[in-house]
Amino acid sequence: MVHGRFDRSDSLPTVTVYNHLDVQPASKAKEPWKREPFEFVKEGNRYLGRGTTDDKGPAITALFGARYAFQNGVCANIHFLWELEEEIGSPHFETTIRDHAQDFATDSVVVSDTVWVSRARPAQPAGLRGLQGFFFDLETGETDQHSGTAGGAARNPLTEICQLISECVDGKTGRVKIPGFYTDVVPPTKKDLEDLKSSGFTVGGFKKDHKYKKLRVEDPLEVMKRIWMMPTFEVHGILGGYQEGRTVKTIIPPRATAIVSCRLVPDMNPKKIVKLVTDFVKSKNPDVRVSAEHALPAYEGKTTGPYADAIRSAMKFAFGKEPVFVREGGSIGAVLSMEKVLKKPIFFLGLSLPLHGYPAPNENYDWDQAAGGMAAFAKYFNEVGSLKAGRP
Amino acid sequence: MVHGRFDRSDSLPTVTVYNHLDVQPASKAKEPWKREPFEFVKEGNRYLGRGTTDDKGPAITALFGARYAFQNGVCANIHFLWELEEEIGSPHFETTIRDHAQDFATDSVVVSDTVWVSRARPAQPAGLRGLQGFFFDLETGETDQHSGTAGGAARNPLTEICQLISECVDGKTGRVKIPGFYTDVVPPTKKDLEDLKSSGFTVGGFKKDHKYKKLRVEDPLEVMKRIWMMPTFEVHGILGGYQEGRTVKTIIPPRATAIVSCRLVPDMNPKKIVKLVTDFVKSKNPDVRVSAEHALPAYEGKTTGPYADAIRSAMKFAFGKEPVFVREGGSIGAVLSMEKVLKKPIFFLGLSLPLHGYPAPNENYDWDQAAGGMAAFAKYFNEVGSLKAGRP
Repeated sequence: MVHGRFDRSDSLPTVTVYNHLDVQPASKAKEPWKREPFEFVKEGNRYLGRGTTDDKGPAITALFGARYAFQNGVCANIHFLWELEEEIGSPHFETTIRDHAQDFATDSVVVSDTVWVSRARPAQPAGLRGLQGFFFDLETGETDQHSGTAGGAARNPLTEICQLISECVDGKTGRVKIPGFYTDVVPPTKKDLEDLKSSGFTVGGFKKDHKYKKLRVEDPLEVMKRIWMMPTFEVHGILGGYQEGRTVKTIIPPRATAIVSCRLVPDMNPKKIVKLVTDFVKSKNPDVRVSAEHALPAYEGKTTGPYADAIRSAMKFAFGKEPVFVREGGSIGAVLSMEKVLKKPIFFLGLSLPLHGYPAPNENYDWDQAAGGMAAFAKYFNEVGSLKAGRP
Repeated sequence: MVHGRFDRSDSLPTVTVYNHLDVQPASKAKEPWKREPFEFVKEGNRYLGRGTTDDKGPAITALFGARYAFQNGVCANIHFLWELEEEIGSPHFETTIRDHAQDFATDSVVVSDTVWVSRARPAQPAGLRGLQGFFFDLETGETDQHSGTAGGAARNPLTEICQLISECVDGKTGRVKIPGFYTDVVPPTKKDLEDLKSSGFTVGGFKKDHKYKKLRVEDPLEVMKRIWMMPTFEVHGILGGYQEGRTVKTIIPPRATAIVSCRLVPDMNPKKIVKLVTDFVKSKNPDVRVSAEHALPAYEGKTTGPYADAIRSAMKFAFGKEPVFVREGGSIGAVLSMEKVLKKPIFFLGLSLPLHGYPAPNENYDWDQAAGGMAAFAKYFNEVGSLKAGRP
């Protein structure tokens, strides 16, 4: 972690900006990157490379906004908290801010690691989905066997894992079949649905940004509910067997692993979900070992009060339009830790756009978002400094 | 292909030995090989390395048997037909023997590329299963997407492929669920079942040789029926998504591929199976593209007549016991081509043992099988030469 400080006076409020500097894996050989993912390139008004939008671009944007505000007499201390383990589930973040609570003490936090709905209108999350990762491991033998000599009698861990996955989730609709999975999901309120409707979201835009021709559903409200307010059950990869290419190597592998995760929403409890999933898997295939990883509960934020108003004012100043408060489908574990340890309000001032590919191949960031973002941050720091001693 | 000839006289019968010299892929990095797979090592009475038992060891054994027989006045011409594309489905074998039919003309063929049931008793196949390979390809997007931003609305090709596989086959029992799949399967005769019962097969031995603790079924007759006389539907690998290791990289991949094959038995027609599988897959998921590969029908051989008697006599001479005629679960495309083009009887004199790992990691061959095999081949050539001019 990096902790940076623009300190002015102990009597003034402190606002802490959270970003992360680590990135997801990337490989030009295995993914359709047009350039080397780890070579930073500027092309026109775009910055290309792994991490440009998730989350180094927003981090640097906030830093320049802070420098400007500080050089121009902002009535606030501005701290930076840069994490370098966000993408692997923030394993040391919470203990570190707890162990150094005095250094990290602040009056509010602003997080810049989220995505707008479209360039046409700023959007800030009023909640994040949580995440619970799993490995489903099945071992049925010791070494590869030949499907000619053993096929028919030998168990095939790949077909068993496929069956298990299809028992957990409807592969086409995404509907999770595990009993009780949806029990604690809070349905959207009328206000939530109104916010969604005025978010500027279009199915066509979503498809274009994510390069999809067809979705599971095509109704815009239904799509928004699914990506922001509903839990998921996704398979990210199946390890085991022949994976070197398009060859029918007729082996029966000795083991297979499904890499799985569930996005969680309020009020789902990750521990309860781990137990539900583990018990269900065991009931369907007792030989499968379930390992749980990455527990992040969902986060529910605020859309009212002086900080929310400061976000509105800053975005309007910088981008000409007030932001709409939506939800974010992704998960930021550090947000939950900061809420728990720092016990101060946390707001979001995200700058990424869907078309930045957050964090897909050919990830990018652009000058328009950087320039507006610097102005928005400078304005936000001023607004927060002008709050009744910044401590409403 | 390599064609070798020990020619004695046009007036004597010609026996052709078929082996293949190509091998399956192997990787010490990815499979539990104790040594480099492509470095040949002799250790005690074992020969270690990829190809030792499938099928170079038997090829060399037959060659030395032939040399001995020839040097000792065998009344036959002995030809060798060594293929180098067997493992990729013999794409040029049939056209080559057809184009050079005069060179390859023979009176009978003996194939040495099969596995005994146990070391305790020689076993020769009276039939081979066929093979039909498939790729099931599904593309639902263009690039990796983040399950946080798109998960719920985006189609996931991995969960769809899992569901499709579970619709094609019961992952646990292996029972194929595609209507009509078993229609043309010839049930075993009473004689077949008697042969199976006297084959020396034990479930314990099979499990030990193939390193299994548990099978789909534990009854010996049922296991033999499943590995030799029943068709299969196996998944050999699922490509797509994150496969670099144990990381919950929360992507939704744009495409996935299942590598699939079916072992076939008499009287299943590969073309009919391709149509059945393709139509079924299309009915379940019209976006999946089915590509068929590797068509080999099953082969049904003979257990009676002078050649079968010569096999019995040769094995008894070399190994002290008459062979039992069973089936072979694997597929040898060249056998079907030779039957079609050469139009002469084809018999099997295999030497591999289940514990040789045919063709799994740590593949090996041993001196006992090589020594006995040389004697068996020499004796077999003599027996065939002594048949009424070798042309019964």
